[in-house]
Amino acid sequence: MFFSFDGIDGAGKSTQMDLFCEWLRKRGRDVVTCRDPGCTPLGERIRDILLHSDQRMPIGRRAEMLLYMAARAQLVDQAVRPALEAGKIVVSDRYLLANLVYQAYAGGLDVEVVRRVGEVAIDGVRPDCVFLLDISLPEADQRLDRSLDRMEQQGDDYRERLRRGFLAEAARPDSHIHVIDAGRPPEEVQADIRQLAVGLLGASP
Amino acid sequence: MFFSFDGIDGAGKSTQMDLFCEWLRKRGRDVVTCRDPGCTPLGERIRDILLHSDQRMPIGRRAEMLLYMAARAQLVDQAVRPALEAGKIVVSDRYLLANLVYQAYAGGLDVEVVRRVGEVAIDGVRPDCVFLLDISLPEADQRLDRSLDRMEQQGDDYRERLRRGFLAEAARPDSHIHVIDAGRPPEEVQADIRQLAVGLLGASP
Repeated sequence: MFFSFDGIDGAGKSTQMDLFCEWLRKRGRDVVTCRDPGCTPLGERIRDILLHSDQRMPIGRRAEMLLYMAARAQLVDQAVRPALEAGKIVVSDRYLLANLVYQAYAGGLDVEVVRRVGEVAIDGVRPDCVFLLDISLPEADQRLDRSLDRMEQQGDDYRERLRRGFLAEAARPDSHIHVIDAGRPPEEVQADIRQLAVGLLGASP
Repeated sequence: MFFSFDGIDGAGKSTQMDLFCEWLRKRGRDVVTCRDPGCTPLGERIRDILLHSDQRMPIGRRAEMLLYMAARAQLVDQAVRPALEAGKIVVSDRYLLANLVYQAYAGGLDVEVVRRVGEVAIDGVRPDCVFLLDISLPEADQRLDRSLDRMEQQGDDYRERLRRGFLAEAARPDSHIHVIDAGRPPEEVQADIRQLAVGLLGASP
């Protein structure tokens, strides 16, 4: 079983993912967590490149998207697929959905182009369930008390396109994306996540 | 006008490309040379990753292909397209053709998958003329006096698949690939290249 968490920054992704994994482990599940991009030596190298591009090393939109894809392909081959084949539960902080939303819906690349390249990168390994933590921008802002990273410095228009992109993908048939209202107290959000997981994992997860 | 050089190692690619650029410059042409992957700060970082992968940082086949594509997308945006738009001649040491041949024909990925991702990476910027320096393996071996790199350590079967892949791509309609018999003396090979270029550039290049 493969779960991923996604949503704009400030939605509480990390908190909810931690709570969820803790709950799974308490129930005796063998859980592998990962983050995308990252988690493999190659993925972490690529993550480092992506987060530290500047004027001395510009990264164009297509190159950026392809770097995310390369990191994801390695994540699938080296971490996600082996863990799933070993019967473990994989929980990922972001996955292909983030690429579609950040690079296409908000970044201006063609959505179907990114989807096609994404299919090559994931090679058939897709989440059984994506928890999309949806939150309004003002609510997200209240929670963001740390300095904004490169993605977050692009203003409200950009972040609104992100949110709409996430919701557009969730509305697609067979998306396996569950929209969770993340503006509520963390324990209520987590309760929804666990309820959905119980439905997927069987009555006594 | 955009030229690229390709072929298996030992075919004389670098020598022929140097002679060709020198000839173009003597005729007053403004020539920009590049190598793929490489040539941009991002491309050189990726090249470094590709050439130094080992057991501590394995790179799967899809991730490898996508890294080449990311480097190429940046090369197009930052170097090739601006130079072409400024009326310069671009001469590249390898380009998408090498990716098709190394990762698909010889490396086992699906040729059409690599071609599709390649179209995204090059974004319509394709060579007007690819000089494919074709040489038999024994002839190439005679010329290779340096230590073999990672690609070249994979044996004759692999290299034979490379050669056949190059020729298969050249046989496609509208490939813009010119097969040059590179087993002859360098000056004869160069004469063929210049003759083809004169036809493309006009009578007095």
